[in-house]
Amino acid sequence: MGEAPDRDEMLRLDKADPLREFRDRFAIGPDPLTYFDGNSLGRPPKATLERLRTVLEEEWADRLIRAWTDGWMNLPTEVGDRLGATVIGAAPGQTVLADSTSVNLFKVLHAAATLRPDRSEIVIDDANFPTDRYLVSAVAEQRGLTVRWITPPDFGVTAESLEPVLSPDTAMVVVCHADYRTAALADVAGITGLVHDAGALAVWDLCHSAGVAPVELDAARADFAVGCTYKYLNAGPGAPAFLYVAARHLASVRQPIEGWFGAEDVFAMGPTYEPATSMRRMLSGTPNVLGLVAVDEGVRLVAEAGLDRIRAKGMALTSLVTDLVDAWLDPLGARIASPREPEARGSHVTVRHPEARAITDRLIASGVIPDFRNPDLIRLGLSPLTTSYAEAWDGLHTLRGIIAA
Amino acid sequence: MGEAPDRDEMLRLDKADPLREFRDRFAIGPDPLTYFDGNSLGRPPKATLERLRTVLEEEWADRLIRAWTDGWMNLPTEVGDRLGATVIGAAPGQTVLADSTSVNLFKVLHAAATLRPDRSEIVIDDANFPTDRYLVSAVAEQRGLTVRWITPPDFGVTAESLEPVLSPDTAMVVVCHADYRTAALADVAGITGLVHDAGALAVWDLCHSAGVAPVELDAARADFAVGCTYKYLNAGPGAPAFLYVAARHLASVRQPIEGWFGAEDVFAMGPTYEPATSMRRMLSGTPNVLGLVAVDEGVRLVAEAGLDRIRAKGMALTSLVTDLVDAWLDPLGARIASPREPEARGSHVTVRHPEARAITDRLIASGVIPDFRNPDLIRLGLSPLTTSYAEAWDGLHTLRGIIAA
Repeated sequence: MGEAPDRDEMLRLDKADPLREFRDRFAIGPDPLTYFDGNSLGRPPKATLERLRTVLEEEWADRLIRAWTDGWMNLPTEVGDRLGATVIGAAPGQTVLADSTSVNLFKVLHAAATLRPDRSEIVIDDANFPTDRYLVSAVAEQRGLTVRWITPPDFGVTAESLEPVLSPDTAMVVVCHADYRTAALADVAGITGLVHDAGALAVWDLCHSAGVAPVELDAARADFAVGCTYKYLNAGPGAPAFLYVAARHLASVRQPIEGWFGAEDVFAMGPTYEPATSMRRMLSGTPNVLGLVAVDEGVRLVAEAGLDRIRAKGMALTSLVTDLVDAWLDPLGARIASPREPEARGSHVTVRHPEARAITDRLIASGVIPDFRNPDLIRLGLSPLTTSYAEAWDGLHTLRGIIAA
Repeated sequence: MGEAPDRDEMLRLDKADPLREFRDRFAIGPDPLTYFDGNSLGRPPKATLERLRTVLEEEWADRLIRAWTDGWMNLPTEVGDRLGATVIGAAPGQTVLADSTSVNLFKVLHAAATLRPDRSEIVIDDANFPTDRYLVSAVAEQRGLTVRWITPPDFGVTAESLEPVLSPDTAMVVVCHADYRTAALADVAGITGLVHDAGALAVWDLCHSAGVAPVELDAARADFAVGCTYKYLNAGPGAPAFLYVAARHLASVRQPIEGWFGAEDVFAMGPTYEPATSMRRMLSGTPNVLGLVAVDEGVRLVAEAGLDRIRAKGMALTSLVTDLVDAWLDPLGARIASPREPEARGSHVTVRHPEARAITDRLIASGVIPDFRNPDLIRLGLSPLTTSYAEAWDGLHTLRGIIAA
């Protein structure tokens, strides 16, 4: 346990930060003092506010229905391709934006099941995010499949923890890239390879890492992925989620919510549903335009900053917070619940304390916003485009005062 | 065929219009001259632009994650209840806003099927909107049901056209309140009663009438309904759709996309999915906040104007357009394809002409925006809150010039 760095050191780090200018690209007011919840809802980019103004006042108000053919129709695939290239290592034609992560995961689980009709099991860990667990249970019931639950090691699903349950019965395996509680990162390529060795499909949930921890879906030969855009991609509350289908599966994939926007020709309105040959086949209803342009702007910012630089700053910030917790909070009974190697975690650090809920409430009242997760976890999210070193230090300093009080 | 009214008469009608002031409540620019497509994408209310500014710059930027507990969490049910009371005759606790019409219809079809497990048929007409037909086919296949197609009379589904196919095998009947091509209105109470006599459930699609033709779902004892908000409710491109479940079904209804926002306690994140006892059980993923507040403002405007006054003006406008088509266009080979009794149609008038597509293109180039529907239909939408009599007259005048040319 080393000595805690002082605040002047933070100011020096901020001054030397190659991403420093990006903080000014967001609308950031005086309150809160420290925002540790960009991993739940990212801050609004100024460019998004301006783009939304244009969409509302020029496209919607002036172009009206013509705006659909001017370009809105293509937003789900265009923004999907941009997100694919920038955030998840996907070549064009494999990513769309639509609906919510829950709806997209529902589609993907059914789609994967159609590709493995003779297999009977879905494997998922019991520490997975609730909506994933709920939907896997629901889809398994709908398709007459069995859920094979595994209890992963402390820091999430590993190849070793999966291997014993994979079998010729395994249809698919559903894994989160970053664990929502601890931020532990799973090995996408390694796990996908193992899943493929068993003849099964790998479905990745990238909600808790998209835009902050690089992933190369094409290179890993992932089969399906979903993820949300309102965390580190800063696309705003309830913005559309993304959905990835590996090109090699596209022709044979069928999704269950066959609505008009998934049809080959949306306005043919013919007697039967003819799925689009492209990734548009994964769409269902009318796209949410305001949400789509917000995703577009969020992804453009990540592209401009560079995911590698974002990742480097994220690791530096999580290391700083880890060091401060060790130095300041460990003596007060708080413990790091995230992996200690920067490469092994995403961009939040989780602190365990028996009074976590009360501490969280007091932190929020003091202008420091983390989030609480049952039963005893405080999550400190570090969003590299908007979190400064001084802001993180100040938040930990406040946290120390509260626990010590 | 009477004499066509002149333009001065239009100016008198506009001056005497009790809804006249509402046109100023929308952002309306100089182009297009006539907007006949408010039945596809309504114009932006100024209050919506202002509300979105507040949500973006104050709630999202300043309150950040706290905005969810400040009030965002309740938007799907709060706005749902307001829409229920104002637009569809639904008491509180039966309406939510979520996803798209396609996703909502998918949920409702599955939910209805769970209530009639021993019945094998879904009845729908082959003139229904594409996404309805596609989804009925998909859900029937998913549940091992049979689709019983009917070909309705010219002006949509009637009790008489349904009666011969209803049987103890009928699980549900899916009907549009307003036909998307002709605007013909179906008799919601009469058809629902007939469907109930057969022991089946009535699923209503209100997309093409919501906000412009009153419907009393509770009084009609409808079972389920869905509908969109970006047409006469002016909530913007891809805004969330609504979903109605009659209170008497709620406790036994199960929907297929069991995501975290449908759980009784969203943040309990427990081991198994416990559906909310309220209408929240029909939700799945994180709600689209920008879309929800836009629906809220659109519904508030309808409430303020009064659906009865909106309906009265809508009938006057569709009558005017019908008269002008008869007087000016009938001699040029165009024919009314909508019902001739104002009470029997919604708020658009459809004109049939063999050159409909080319005429539509020329109209748009001339600053008059209708929409075209296969194979020979031009739809002229009249949105009572924003369409003036003079605007409608001008649009028809331009249309006459184009067909005569």
